[in-house]
Amino acid sequence: MHEARDSIDQTFGLVPTMGYLHEGHLSLVRRARAENDVCVAWIFVNPTQFTPGEDFERYPRDEDRDTRLLEAEGVDILFVPSVEEIYPPGFSTVVEVRGIITEHLEGQFRPGHFRGVTTVVSKFFHIMQPDRAYFGQKDAQQVAVIKKLVRELDFGIEIVVCPTVREPDGLAMSSRNAYLERSERKAATVLYRALSAAEQLFRQGGRRGGALRTAMTNILATQPQARPDYVSVADPETLDELDLVTGRALASLAVYIGPTRLIDNVVLE
Amino acid sequence: MHEARDSIDQTFGLVPTMGYLHEGHLSLVRRARAENDVCVAWIFVNPTQFTPGEDFERYPRDEDRDTRLLEAEGVDILFVPSVEEIYPPGFSTVVEVRGIITEHLEGQFRPGHFRGVTTVVSKFFHIMQPDRAYFGQKDAQQVAVIKKLVRELDFGIEIVVCPTVREPDGLAMSSRNAYLERSERKAATVLYRALSAAEQLFRQGGRRGGALRTAMTNILATQPQARPDYVSVADPETLDELDLVTGRALASLAVYIGPTRLIDNVVLE
Repeated sequence: MHEARDSIDQTFGLVPTMGYLHEGHLSLVRRARAENDVCVAWIFVNPTQFTPGEDFERYPRDEDRDTRLLEAEGVDILFVPSVEEIYPPGFSTVVEVRGIITEHLEGQFRPGHFRGVTTVVSKFFHIMQPDRAYFGQKDAQQVAVIKKLVRELDFGIEIVVCPTVREPDGLAMSSRNAYLERSERKAATVLYRALSAAEQLFRQGGRRGGALRTAMTNILATQPQARPDYVSVADPETLDELDLVTGRALASLAVYIGPTRLIDNVVLE
Repeated sequence: MHEARDSIDQTFGLVPTMGYLHEGHLSLVRRARAENDVCVAWIFVNPTQFTPGEDFERYPRDEDRDTRLLEAEGVDILFVPSVEEIYPPGFSTVVEVRGIITEHLEGQFRPGHFRGVTTVVSKFFHIMQPDRAYFGQKDAQQVAVIKKLVRELDFGIEIVVCPTVREPDGLAMSSRNAYLERSERKAATVLYRALSAAEQLFRQGGRRGGALRTAMTNILATQPQARPDYVSVADPETLDELDLVTGRALASLAVYIGPTRLIDNVVLE
């Protein structure tokens, strides 16, 4: 691959995914195609970013449909490695961004999650040597962690962040939406309604982190099927929780709707 | 750098060092020059691979002399970054090979040492994108760890290991030899004499790990200035301690001579 990259003068755009693709993924692919000579996609349900008891085994998979969708979008190269190819026996290397940025929010409820992400992403980057890699703003903390990873380890790759793609009623697209029963699907709109309440308060001049969080919590409380893991107003880069918003802020939340855990966020600016 | 690498079709050989160069380092440089179009050397005394209380502050440095030596050897590019350039404020990313391979031997007496090595080497690899990187067999465990790192994270870099260079009396070349007082310098020959005793026993058919270790320990015991940290006969790749040598084995030791800690090894095969 290295030889191939040296001998041709093309730019590579990488879209790493866990498959079961939706419009959010496809928006990454379109952007990667538009900005690069070669668009590479990856489908790999990475076991090391699931914590024990999570949904690794039952995570939705449909390789045939994914392949058709990616072909239709004009993806040039598609990798679908097995777990054994990525993690051969005895594998024991980890790449880890330490500190608040990975311990807070998702990190608090999914210990080891980001270590799994940064390790597998480092492998993807080495194998593909992309010029740019595309991630969705939906996973805002992942974006912050990967940007820090790339900067601190000098990967020399541009991280391109694409907007969250939403259903008409505001629900952020997610492969895990497939888990939702009909009544849960309806209840799940509460996440974006809570974030919108924070956005509205912010537009009206609300800058206190506590008030912004309360605005979200109050909306979530109206939905009996919603059980929040966290509700946060934090610095978008460091993930430090903010008492007072002086610049940009990331309003984010993780909420169980029935047995399904969903996350969403908006940037206040 | 990436652009530069794409536009030219040359091979790069990297020699990462902590400076205060001796013939061991220069042998790496010569091999890197012979095998690549461009030879890049790095001098960086990496604070994160020293454990608290170790000799980071007083580690010998002589940048002017090092630069002259490398110029004389025909090194094409020399990097001498500052600590702040490599670890900007807030730096919190680590690359770590876990398990026996880093916990045993040096890892037991220098906790965190290999995490510091693998993190900084990952940065060097990303910045320079070498085709080959050159390390000395003197640091046998480091070699095993870096080979595993490169394999498991798919760096796509060839790790070239060069033989230990020794003084006429057998002492392995090391920047830390500069610490030795005259009587210590003489006493330090006990490391290689101990390893030679293991080699001799092995040549005579000795295959029991216990007997090979005892052969080394007995020689070390003859030198009152020698205080061993460990004496080991282990698998050269996994660093698992061996009861019975069936293939190759790494005989290694770490010994204090006065206040100076020295390491050395031979491969039994």
